[in-house]
Amino acid sequence: MSGLKEKLRSLDIQLGEAKPAVGNYIGCKIAGNLLYASGRVSDQKGKVGRDVSLEQARKAAHDTVLLILSIKKHEIRDLDRLKGVIKVQGFINCNDDFLELPKVLDGASDLLIDLFGDNGRHARTATGVAQLPFGTSVQLDIIFELDS
Amino acid sequence: MSGLKEKLRSLDIQLGEAKPAVGNYIGCKIAGNLLYASGRVSDQKGKVGRDVSLEQARKAAHDTVLLILSIKKHEIRDLDRLKGVIKVQGFINCNDDFLELPKVLDGASDLLIDLFGDNGRHARTATGVAQLPFGTSVQLDIIFELDS
Amino acid sequence: MSGLKEKLRSLDIQLGEAKPAVGNYIGCKIAGNLLYASGRVSDQKGKVGRDVSLEQARKAAHDTVLLILSIKKHEIRDLDRLKGVIKVQGFINCNDDFLELPKVLDGASDLLIDLFGDNGRHARTATGVAQLPFGTSVQLDIIFELDS
Repeated sequence: MSGLKEKLRSLDIQLGEAKPAVGNYIGCKIAGNLLYASGRVSDQKGKVGRDVSLEQARKAAHDTVLLILSIKKHEIRDLDRLKGVIKVQGFINCNDDFLELPKVLDGASDLLIDLFGDNGRHARTATGVAQLPFGTSVQLDIIFELDS
Repeated sequence: MSGLKEKLRSLDIQLGEAKPAVGNYIGCKIAGNLLYASGRVSDQKGKVGRDVSLEQARKAAHDTVLLILSIKKHEIRDLDRLKGVIKVQGFINCNDDFLELPKVLDGASDLLIDLFGDNGRHARTATGVAQLPFGTSVQLDIIFELDS
Repeated sequence: MSGLKEKLRSLDIQLGEAKPAVGNYIGCKIAGNLLYASGRVSDQKGKVGRDVSLEQARKAAHDTVLLILSIKKHEIRDLDRLKGVIKVQGFINCNDDFLELPKVLDGASDLLIDLFGDNGRHARTATGVAQLPFGTSVQLDIIFELDS
């Protein structure tokens, strides 16, 4: 069974440099075989449903998964230690009348399942919020499963 | 000690059909003896404090627990495997000036404690948010304890 | 290695009385060696960026950590059982145009790291929300690590 690194190669995905934390926290914390990743915001800024379209927001969710993995790569060294995904909590900076929150998060979920296969299937919660750090559009907070 | 199924019977509660996920996620994911349930929204729609009263929102929180249990019944087959509740995170789609968030969530907490007894007592967080999927009023994200 | 009680003494911090829960939930729930603390709101009220300044909000986050520890002291008796911090989820009741969410939460994170040392370093998520219970400014939801 191939690991995450091989899968990224086969999908021709190259992770960028890990971006530094924007406050006094760390990118992830391990407890037993769970890895709690810090909430990571998208590079995309603006309110979804006003400044940002559903398609842009969906792509932002997809791209944020890669930002998170680049931080993991930096912090746990061997990405193959990540075995699956337990939970995704998604926060979307959106207009009061934007209702399609799940479609935005599918941009992240589809990629996680592509990358981890059945182990990538996860519980999920979608919430529309008033604001995210620096006016970004999407934030993902993920609990990963580690090898034991 | 009677289990959850017996308790539901004694309270004359019949769970409905499990509703399908509205995106690419699963209803729950198990890690060790914790079951992470996906955030589930209420059938009730509208902003609490504007379109929806406190009493209606409280009932929506109560009813959402039953929606979640019907999904669990479908996914883990034997509901008696659920032994207790660790954490309830409640999101309420409300007006800026609606302050009674804890009273809304008591609709869920009271029922969970009725169903699980002392093991149903849980840590809880209440947040008022700008929007929930499909304009619903309440969302509950619950971590349950499984038998080991 | 000195524990949390000694550290509080050395910083000349005295914890106040534990405040009661405002609904049908408990202050914390233990699962394995994780302690899930209920979301605790600040004494400070008002919307950050409108009624409340960044500095006030930052202090509110700091003070809320102490409110949480006073509840822990009451519930687990021996504070030295707390060994570290896994995750901080911070909710900030803020204006749509308030972007400095991480700076607010650093008020909590700096203190947690002062108190727990390296074990206090944690994953973190910052979210700006429409409302918090009773119109408060900041809410912290923390997962602590217990001794085993």
